[in-house]
Amino acid sequence: MNINPIQLFDTESSTFTYILVGEDDKSAVIIDAVDHHWERDLAHLKRLGLELAYVLETHAHADHVTAAGKLREVTGAKAAVPAGCGIAPAEVQLNDGDIIRFGKDEQIKVIHTPGHTAGSVSYLWRGNVFTGDTLLIDGCGRTDFQSGSSAALYDSVVGKLFKLPDTTRVWPGHDYKGQSVSTIGWEKEHNSRLAHRSKEDFATLMASLNLPKPRMIDIAVPANQNLGVRPEERH
Amino acid sequence: MNINPIQLFDTESSTFTYILVGEDDKSAVIIDAVDHHWERDLAHLKRLGLELAYVLETHAHADHVTAAGKLREVTGAKAAVPAGCGIAPAEVQLNDGDIIRFGKDEQIKVIHTPGHTAGSVSYLWRGNVFTGDTLLIDGCGRTDFQSGSSAALYDSVVGKLFKLPDTTRVWPGHDYKGQSVSTIGWEKEHNSRLAHRSKEDFATLMASLNLPKPRMIDIAVPANQNLGVRPEERH
Repeated sequence: MNINPIQLFDTESSTFTYILVGEDDKSAVIIDAVDHHWERDLAHLKRLGLELAYVLETHAHADHVTAAGKLREVTGAKAAVPAGCGIAPAEVQLNDGDIIRFGKDEQIKVIHTPGHTAGSVSYLWRGNVFTGDTLLIDGCGRTDFQSGSSAALYDSVVGKLFKLPDTTRVWPGHDYKGQSVSTIGWEKEHNSRLAHRSKEDFATLMASLNLPKPRMIDIAVPANQNLGVRPEERH
Repeated sequence: MNINPIQLFDTESSTFTYILVGEDDKSAVIIDAVDHHWERDLAHLKRLGLELAYVLETHAHADHVTAAGKLREVTGAKAAVPAGCGIAPAEVQLNDGDIIRFGKDEQIKVIHTPGHTAGSVSYLWRGNVFTGDTLLIDGCGRTDFQSGSSAALYDSVVGKLFKLPDTTRVWPGHDYKGQSVSTIGWEKEHNSRLAHRSKEDFATLMASLNLPKPRMIDIAVPANQNLGVRPEERH
């Protein structure tokens, strides 16, 4: 049976935050928390009687600031982040194939999925994959900054994520159209950027997007490399 | 272990829609779908490879129109609704204690929870209770129209819902503050309208609210009593 996470949304940046609850119904981890929602997220943990074992990041975000540092501070959780993202203050630097353990016997597998950023990872847990900005529902993250690479993203999605079982639930880092969850089977067949497309064709498509520079990038990336704790907040 | 539903949101009316997925990973029911999201909801079912067994309603809503009739039409699902809500075209009229079965061995128990409306029900499934507008997170539905009754709502919440195990997850019909899920244990201790309050005190509180008449009520209630299919759409 497929166990769903609790999915939370930030309307400003259209970011999804996920709370994964262990089988013991007590332990939890949170993925990609958003700075101004740390009290909302903490309230959810309290209402559900959960102890936060880890704050996880899929990458160093360019469009919003993480609440990972704040949640770590108030809960005592550890921060676990992709090794290639320059997020220095985290307790755990994750590499491809690493397993994050929490609760009684929960295991989250780290899959290195570069392309949106060089360090981006996806997290696999109980038939759910949390794909950050690598694979979106019927889309994918942009590949034109932060060591992004359309060739790497293609390999990550087609070569790694599309090899997961078809029924694997896909929980993206963002959605802009009211979509919440998909499956590997559906994306493999229907994703308008990546399904049935060659690597060359995908590279041409991504090179033609001409997207504007993210408004927040110059603030967000340095802040996120410090787990969202900005210099003026340090004491 | 607590199995979560998939929670979807309508920003216009702040309504939650829920998809409950059976252990077979194929069968599903949907609770409180919203009219203009029927294509979104159908897309979720398709992406996840789900067959819809039932469209369920917690009551005849006054603030939005249901997509139950439309989803029933396009999927072949049956409509199951509370017997006391005047929703005539549904295949199944539900009473307190009834069990809705779907998938391999999924059972949803109907709990009659009058108060917001006389016919309102809550649905209990695998440690989750879907409370419609009866019990909200740190609040409750209004009781001043549609045969609403603060005394009945008090008895429904304190006498029935608060008797469920503390760890039962509470999934409300609405939220206006970015909250998504709570537990019976938390609400019993902290709900600002209902925790540690007498029935008389609650009645006084509810009588003092002086809420405006819902904008949509004259359109929504008759439409919802027809599963959201408006007269001009009939053929």
